[in-house]
Amino acid sequence: MKFLTYKLQGKVSYGAVVDDGVVDLGKKFAKKYPSLRAAIKAGALEDLKKAVKGKKPDVKLSKISYLPVLPDARKIICVGLNYKAHREETGRPDTEHPTLFVRFADSQMGHNQPMLRPKESDRLDWEGELVVVIGKSGRRIPRDKAMKHVAGYSIYNDGSVRDWQRHTTQFTPGKNFPSTGGFGPWLVTADEIKDITAQTLTTRVNGVVKQQSQIDMMIFDIPALIAYISGFTNLNAGDVIVTGTPGGVGAARNPPEFMKPGDVVEVEITGIGTLRNPIKAG
Amino acid sequence: MKFLTYKLQGKVSYGAVVDDGVVDLGKKFAKKYPSLRAAIKAGALEDLKKAVKGKKPDVKLSKISYLPVLPDARKIICVGLNYKAHREETGRPDTEHPTLFVRFADSQMGHNQPMLRPKESDRLDWEGELVVVIGKSGRRIPRDKAMKHVAGYSIYNDGSVRDWQRHTTQFTPGKNFPSTGGFGPWLVTADEIKDITAQTLTTRVNGVVKQQSQIDMMIFDIPALIAYISGFTNLNAGDVIVTGTPGGVGAARNPPEFMKPGDVVEVEITGIGTLRNPIKAG
Repeated sequence: MKFLTYKLQGKVSYGAVVDDGVVDLGKKFAKKYPSLRAAIKAGALEDLKKAVKGKKPDVKLSKISYLPVLPDARKIICVGLNYKAHREETGRPDTEHPTLFVRFADSQMGHNQPMLRPKESDRLDWEGELVVVIGKSGRRIPRDKAMKHVAGYSIYNDGSVRDWQRHTTQFTPGKNFPSTGGFGPWLVTADEIKDITAQTLTTRVNGVVKQQSQIDMMIFDIPALIAYISGFTNLNAGDVIVTGTPGGVGAARNPPEFMKPGDVVEVEITGIGTLRNPIKAG
Repeated sequence: MKFLTYKLQGKVSYGAVVDDGVVDLGKKFAKKYPSLRAAIKAGALEDLKKAVKGKKPDVKLSKISYLPVLPDARKIICVGLNYKAHREETGRPDTEHPTLFVRFADSQMGHNQPMLRPKESDRLDWEGELVVVIGKSGRRIPRDKAMKHVAGYSIYNDGSVRDWQRHTTQFTPGKNFPSTGGFGPWLVTADEIKDITAQTLTTRVNGVVKQQSQIDMMIFDIPALIAYISGFTNLNAGDVIVTGTPGGVGAARNPPEFMKPGDVVEVEITGIGTLRNPIKAG
């Protein structure tokens, strides 16, 4: 099933995609679970699924404003340099462990919402990525049990302000400008995707393919990421792992390419969907 | 005034320090402001101050369990390498901008609570630091208005698991183990400290001084940090800036020194107080 967070007539809700519409789950569950994240945290995804059964959509998808799938995510852990081709294009050496940085939830925007190029920089770059949403909390999760902790998958565009990312060794500033982290359109529950590693990620800017890779080209795969991250922090249901971008980012091209207002960036992952964001000045 | 978050008989509340006790503010305000952070976010610190006037403590300080000053902090932005002596001892070059990484709120513990040395490492190091708590939200805050955005000050021990911090270029893993971020004992409002830069920070392990510096030895001072951080993210009331540690960390000593279960680490800042944490195996 596909779950999403959206706004309709000024009101934020969450729901499930049925046909070409949304079954509003917020109206039934918001008192108990004020957000989709809260529902996942409470282990209520199965209850939500049951509540959708036999229901007709309350509203067409074309009428809603998409919000980030989890606008109130507590931990958004992003993996850098997790595809060989991208690691090579950045000139960074191999490491024995994943490279991890953090996004704040308020740097995110939903499908179709603008990605903002801040006035502080003209180096806004794309990074199409697979998202893993945690469905079962844990610490020190062993590799062979890791996939049981996955609620589902989504798509991220880890929009990166390259000059600010490289002000120092730490990536934090370049990864946290408001409305640079595209997260959507929805969460696809894990049971709907037989083999996530067999899916293909494609990033397009103005219709031109810039990145394309199968998910199995990750250096640290999903079980390895969950095992390592839960080694140092509690991974809680509703937490988000943004698993890294393949080769083909703009900064590594010759000459470098960056996005400018008027551009449209799309990240597609087979079996999940397409996350689309127009670029605006911000 | 001094504000803190605490637990008493299993119940979490927040309050103000009066004499050797606490005036419980949670019982009056928790419906409106469920946490001290929420009260600061709502701009209600002045209301809290008024409510304390003339009140006698509800409970002695010696009876409470201290929690992190802001257990539910949304953004905890930590500054690395922000004192010349510490930058030199790590061998890292000067940078034009502050080095920033992120802590998750659930890596924190309060005054007198144990700092946990995880079984994953024997390299748990101390880092005494000044905390700035934001009192007024803003983006792109100019240097000369920055101090108006400060609610007050506190003390942090940015307990660092050095091997995990250095697994890759990004510090995230070594800075987020549960119960490694000591935050307390309380928030001292800005009006109580005439000149924060004139205060002295001292870190002691088992009573032996390991770090000592005046706050004015920071490379990027408080206005510079607020201006830079608010350049790339909204700084909201209740957010936390952990401003960096002076020279004298354990990893840089010859031979290196790390903390082990049974040790006691204290960070004192004049005008604020002393944050004390015993080390336990975790």
